Amino acid sequence: MPKIPVLEMFGPTIQGEGAVIGKKTMFVRTSGCDYRCSWCDSSFTWDGSAKDDIRLLEPEEIIAELDALAPQRYQHVTISGGNPALIKNIGPLVEALNERNIQTALETQGSKFQSWMTQIDDLTISPKPPSSGMKPNLPILDDVISQCVEESLSLKVVVFDDDDYQFAKDIHARYPSIPFYVQVGNPYLDDRVSNHTEKLLEKYEALIDKVMNDTLNDIYVLPQLHTLLWSNKKGV
Amino acid sequence: MPKIPVLEMFGPTIQGEGAVIGKKTMFVRTSGCDYRCSWCDSSFTWDGSAKDDIRLLEPEEIIAELDALAPQRYQHVTISGGNPALIKNIGPLVEALNERNIQTALETQGSKFQSWMTQIDDLTISPKPPSSGMKPNLPILDDVISQCVEESLSLKVVVFDDDDYQFAKDIHARYPSIPFYVQVGNPYLDDRVSNHTEKLLEKYEALIDKVMNDTLNDIYVLPQLHTLLWSNKKGV
Repeated sequence: MPKIPVLEMFGPTIQGEGAVIGKKTMFVRTSGCDYRCSWCDSSFTWDGSAKDDIRLLEPEEIIAELDALAPQRYQHVTISGGNPALIKNIGPLVEALNERNIQTALETQGSKFQSWMTQIDDLTISPKPPSSGMKPNLPILDDVISQCVEESLSLKVVVFDDDDYQFAKDIHARYPSIPFYVQVGNPYLDDRVSNHTEKLLEKYEALIDKVMNDTLNDIYVLPQLHTLLWSNKKGV
Repeated sequence: MPKIPVLEMFGPTIQGEGAVIGKKTMFVRTSGCDYRCSWCDSSFTWDGSAKDDIRLLEPEEIIAELDALAPQRYQHVTISGGNPALIKNIGPLVEALNERNIQTALETQGSKFQSWMTQIDDLTISPKPPSSGMKPNLPILDDVISQCVEESLSLKVVVFDDDDYQFAKDIHARYPSIPFYVQVGNPYLDDRVSNHTEKLLEKYEALIDKVMNDTLNDIYVLPQLHTLLWSNKKGV
């Protein structure tokens, strides 16, 4: 059976972002990314700092570990990264979870398609805005989105500044029928920053004000709930 | 044209709760309620304190006022109360909004059905838990839910204490296929309470812990985003 490079598994906790915000879920974080976002909150998945923690696991080993972490206490698994869409071998994991009547979510930037993405229940594609330092290839994004199942799909853009906001508007205009989320950027990756919740809420309110005074109407504006609660602590 | 008793209209702002949390929306608050919840955050809709603010408005008058408040800046209207489901005459408002391609949401406790509820896009039924001092009639709730459009429907239970939590579990078990949200109760209705955000987040974290350590799995756990941001200030 093909193996999957896993960096961490944790939960149950809540999904802190996007279309299924608040949902009780387990997280499986894969290693490796094709991007190097300046503000990545999981840079250990690609910067080599956690390379000794990578384990190559079969789907049944992953599920056994999730079961041990949360016996009878989960029905939803979020696959996150890094960019899990780089990994062809996730298909059998998604199938094994589906067979157990466990729902799945995926978070990816939309730079790569895998056929198993059509079996994901909650698929978030999050094209990266200018502040990330990355430049999404939009024809590739078009192609990835065209192959996804529309009912499962939402788009999310993180917004730190005005350029990101314009990028978000452009993405929403390009795919107007796909549920669209803007998420306030979190510049406080250092856990030791004081009053991070208050500061994040101020930034969230500023983003709300911007959207409310604009004609961008069919839209959701959200914070990251987990950072309001726990800053960037790992494993929650 | 039949008229609707309106207490306030405001927006655009974000929906702070439930299945469409974060969504940009306008609010139309109707007066009157069949319940008297002990912790109601909108008791002015039923306690007589705002009776001089009630206006009887036709659908076109309501829409004209929304347009004036937010020209070109809204595509979603939330009808809240009080209990709007007491009001038969909301039907033409929902139809007029639908004709303009404006989506609608409704919040109600599920004590009463109106045929226009089948035309609502995002329908939240929120049976009131024991701490409210109310006692929902479950056979009536069954009947109301059976007449709603399943795709539009979600259930939300506010949880203040252990009895409420057990009530939430019972409701979820009664309607297992309906998307289910628990929302942390807000005891800080007085705007002058200090550190309300911190206190609410502590309560939210405690509710998350409870759900994560339980076998209640197909569930969302959410705070009220607007109270984190703005306490109980009216008009946002």
